[in-house]
Formats: sequence, C-alpha cells, structure tokens
Amino acid sequence: MTGEAGAGGNRTEDVERTDSMIDILVVGSVALDDIDTPFGQARDALGGSAVYFSAAASAFASIGIVGVVGEDYPIDRLAAFRSRGVDLAGLEVREGTSFRWAGSYDYDLSSRETLLTELGVFAEFQPSIPQSFQGAPWVFLGNIHPRLQLDVLRQVEDPRLVLCDTMNYWIEGNRSELLELLEHVDMLLVNDAEARELSGDFNLARAAAWIRERGPDYVVIKKGEHGAILFGPEEVFFAPGYPLEEIFDPTGAGDAFAGGLLGHLARAGRLDSEEMRRAIVFGCAMGSFACEAFGPERLMDLGVAEVADRVWSFHEMTRFESLVVPS
Amino acid sequence: MTGEAGAGGNRTEDVERTDSMIDILVVGSVALDDIDTPFGQARDALGGSAVYFSAAASAFASIGIVGVVGEDYPIDRLAAFRSRGVDLAGLEVREGTSFRWAGSYDYDLSSRETLLTELGVFAEFQPSIPQSFQGAPWVFLGNIHPRLQLDVLRQVEDPRLVLCDTMNYWIEGNRSELLELLEHVDMLLVNDAEARELSGDFNLARAAAWIRERGPDYVVIKKGEHGAILFGPEEVFFAPGYPLEEIFDPTGAGDAFAGGLLGHLARAGRLDSEEMRRAIVFGCAMGSFACEAFGPERLMDLGVAEVADRVWSFHEMTRFESLVVPS
Repeated sequence: MTGEAGAGGNRTEDVERTDSMIDILVVGSVALDDIDTPFGQARDALGGSAVYFSAAASAFASIGIVGVVGEDYPIDRLAAFRSRGVDLAGLEVREGTSFRWAGSYDYDLSSRETLLTELGVFAEFQPSIPQSFQGAPWVFLGNIHPRLQLDVLRQVEDPRLVLCDTMNYWIEGNRSELLELLEHVDMLLVNDAEARELSGDFNLARAAAWIRERGPDYVVIKKGEHGAILFGPEEVFFAPGYPLEEIFDPTGAGDAFAGGLLGHLARAGRLDSEEMRRAIVFGCAMGSFACEAFGPERLMDLGVAEVADRVWSFHEMTRFESLVVPS
Repeated sequence: MTGEAGAGGNRTEDVERTDSMIDILVVGSVALDDIDTPFGQARDALGGSAVYFSAAASAFASIGIVGVVGEDYPIDRLAAFRSRGVDLAGLEVREGTSFRWAGSYDYDLSSRETLLTELGVFAEFQPSIPQSFQGAPWVFLGNIHPRLQLDVLRQVEDPRLVLCDTMNYWIEGNRSELLELLEHVDMLLVNDAEARELSGDFNLARAAAWIRERGPDYVVIKKGEHGAILFGPEEVFFAPGYPLEEIFDPTGAGDAFAGGLLGHLARAGRLDSEEMRRAIVFGCAMGSFACEAFGPERLMDLGVAEVADRVWSFHEMTRFESLVVPS
C-alpha cells in the first residue's frame, strides 16, 4: 500500500529518479484539522507537523516528506507543496481514514483545548524512508513515538544535523526510548514545560544543560509568544516573539519554527555559531508568519525576500550597542 | 513629624545644603519584608519599591528617596545606602509602625502568595518633596496611589523624564485618576497582565499603542523571566530575561529593573533611541542581580563595571547579523 501519493508513482520509480534528491527529510504527521479561535474557524485545514514544517522550510530548500494518510485525504490540495519543491514520494496512502485533529483556542491564544484526536492510519505509521531520501543531509523528526524516530535514524545515511521534536506524552510514557533517541540527535526542540518535565529541573538553564549532557549539542526551548532560547556549545542565544497586532491561529507555529530553522541551515550550509543564531531568528520569523492565517496558507505565500525582511525586523527589535567590552 | 531619618536633620537644613542636589527622585514604599522561598527565608529584610529602586540606581547616579517609615524602622541599616549616594532627607519618620509585607514563593518563583500586608504609617503617606529634590531631572514614581503620584508631579520643577510604576489594584479601583496621571508621565512601567487590564486588549502590541495614546511616549512591559519590551516613538525593543542558574528571591526585581533603567539614563544624560535600548538592558541586568540574593543585598555590592559585564552578556545572548538589509 505504499506509493507516491496522488501521482500513481511508487518507491521503485523514485529510486531511479535522480532529480528527487532532497535537502531536508521530514518525518511526521499529515493531518486534517478543525480549528476554532475567537477570530474565526477552519474546517479540514491542512495540518500536521510534516505539513507545517514543509510549508515553512520550502521557502529555503527542497524537502522530502515521509508520512501516512488515509484514502480520504485530499491529495490534490498538496499540489502547491509540490510546486514549492516538496517531494511527496514518501507519503504513503493507506486504507483507512486520515489523522484528524480538532482544537479550540481561548481568547489569549496561548492555551488550547483539544476537542478531537482521531489517529486513523497514523496509529499504524511505520516510517519507511525512500532510498532517494536516505542521503538527505538535514533531518527533522517531527513529534512521533521516539521508537519510530529511532527507526528513521537507522534508515538514513549520515545526516549533517538531526533536529528532533517531542512532547510531554512521550516524556511521561516512553522516557527510556526518548533518552536512547537523544544520544543520536544533534538538536532537541522542546517547549519550556517539556524541558522542565524531561530534566526534572524547573530552572531552564539547568534543564538545558541536563539535556545537552544526554546527547544533543543544541537544545532549543520554544516559549511561544515569548520567543525561543538556543543553548549550544558556544552560546546561549535568545530571540523574542514577534509582536503581531493580529494573531489568527497559532496552530503549527512550532513546526513552522522548526522549518524556518532547519530551512535556513540547509540553505546556508554552515553550522557555526553565527549561522545558528540566524537560524533561530528565521525560526521565530516563520513561527510568526504561521500565526497570521488559519492553516499553513500564509507560509505557502512566502519567498526568501519577505522572510528576510521580517528577520531584519527582529534584528532592529533586539540590537543594541553594549559600549563596554570586557577584557 | 518630618525630619531626616536617623540623623536628626530636617528639611530646612536640607534646603540649605547645596550638596544634597540629586540626579534621581524616587517616591515609593520603604518596608520590612518577610520572604519565604523554597531556597530559604528572610525576616525583616529591607524592602519596598523606593529601597529596591535606590539600591539599583545608586550604582549609576545620586538618588533622593521620599517615603515614610514608623518609629520602629531600623534606620541605621540604611547607612550603606547613604554611602552609595542615597539622600534620605525625604524619608519621613512618623509615629506608628512601618509598612510590613510578607510573601511566600512557590518552587517556580514566578507566582507568589502575599501572607501579610500591614500598611502602618504608609497608609497615611502624603509625599512631601524636599526643596533640594524638586529640581531632580529624573523622577521615579513607585507603585503608590495615582493621586499621590500626581501630587508628586505638582511638587517637582521640570523633570527630563518621569518613569511611573502602577499595579492592578489601582487599574481596577482608581482608573480615572490613573488615566489623568498618564497624561503627565513620560514612561509607564507595567507587567503584561497590567498592560492588558489597563487597555482592555489582550494583544500586547495593541495594548502598548493604547497606553501611548493616553500620554506616555514610552511603555515598558515587564515579563519577569521572559524579559521586557519597550514600545517607543521610534522603536520596539526586546531584551530577554537573564538565564540565571540560581534564583533565590525575585522580590523587588521590578523596582531594581526600574532603577537600572533610570539610573543608566541619568548617567548617560541622553534620551535617544540607542540610549533607551541600553537602558532597558541595564534594567534587565539589575533585575537579574536582584534575584541572586534575599532583599536588596546583591544590588548594594554592585559597581558600574560589574553591571556593564552583565550588559555585555545580554549583548552576546541577543546579537546576530541579519545579512539582508531591506532597501
């Protein structure tokens, strides 16, 4: 039941296609979302971590998605992704229903209530990486079971950087597998509550140090409207949230953040401290764009130039001269 | 019942002392605090907004305090303030008991429970500004009744900048007086919840715009561990919280922030955008030092050089090159 979604292709064809080589491999959920906010609602919006990530990262690099959908999934709605250089050769269509999620946001948009989670075929997801994706230099492990994330890493060759997302559900229920995974991950992406829960330390600086001792060179702590912090071998780096005057829908902002971050690194091709700092800001920029519309729509409009303008705004919002330089 | 605390002086003497001219006038509470945190406790700690502010600002400039204490107040414990250039000529000693506050912090240190508030003589506080303070170019109105803050402004000559703190209690109970006050204030200092409550808008960017339309050129929104945002005529500027690995006591951090901010401006003597940005960072630096010990102790150790080192750390934590500069 594996084949290139919506195009009648299959894995064998893909292997033979030399033009399917990609910059970034993303493995994660592909879903349909119902979203309610005080500012409006969306039904059957394209959703899932792989979709939001790809919408953001495709502004910078070519992407290959590995995920699973049911036969009910409107594959033709992914055409815009294809035309942005997203390769769907790893999107498996299985008998059954697609992952559906429904959530409702309160007026403050910072907390949400999950109204529905129907995993459908996603419950049986077993990521199988097309051969044409296995050499991808950049890998994003979206928020799935840590055992599956480990399976993905066994199928890829030698990526330059593996970025991994997770959540409280796995931290609480699959701690030992998550800790094993961390040994093979270069950068972990968590929110502040997850960093605290994983490390058992309320203090974020100590929590990040605890996580870094278990494998990842980099820990990125997402703080929603308060921005993000990078803890790395050479630096602690902060980027703020963007002060949007209108926020419509924060769904997917964390995955868009990951897409901006890894997309920028793939485009830059360097992993030094200067580039890492910029990557965090590109992440914050894409997270802010994600909030400007329901679903991934706004992200799909973006080219590098418009993103660079917002990165410049972040620069203007944070720059100052210290005057005193310690010896 | 007015006299220079602990030195047998009085206002008349102060007027004649030309050496009592000050850079910054601060009007606020002078209290004794009992503080409980999971990391220890303090009894009869020096506290109050005027005390924390002065402890921080005295690293940069000369300060005059206007406040009131009871006869039970241990005036001799303020000797260290005098030796840092804090003029106590406006500290009134009245018959009765001093303002006492007791609070307890939970493990996360971001929320606290007030266990005791005994206003004592502070309930009858009527700020009377010594003549030698009336020409102060920089004024900090600590968190007191907005009517009293207005009274202070009627007694001063023509300050270059008036920085004003307030709280939810006045926003809810004395809204019309607070709005009148705002017309005469250059910079309002509030936390995010207060900005939202005052403006009736959850969105911080719009809340700040609402406040700026009512008078203040600048609105500074304090976000505790998440840093601070400046909304001004020329800029939006963010500074992060400092990632301390050990936080002992956040009491007074907001007033220490105000002290670093206004202290830096008084020392620099300029109000341009570059200096405003630096002032916010000096505020964040002093707020972070305030958390490193119980009471204002840590602040009283600091000289300009040590503060400048931390400001440099903030610079290193936030700097990045945008590469793309929009035309």
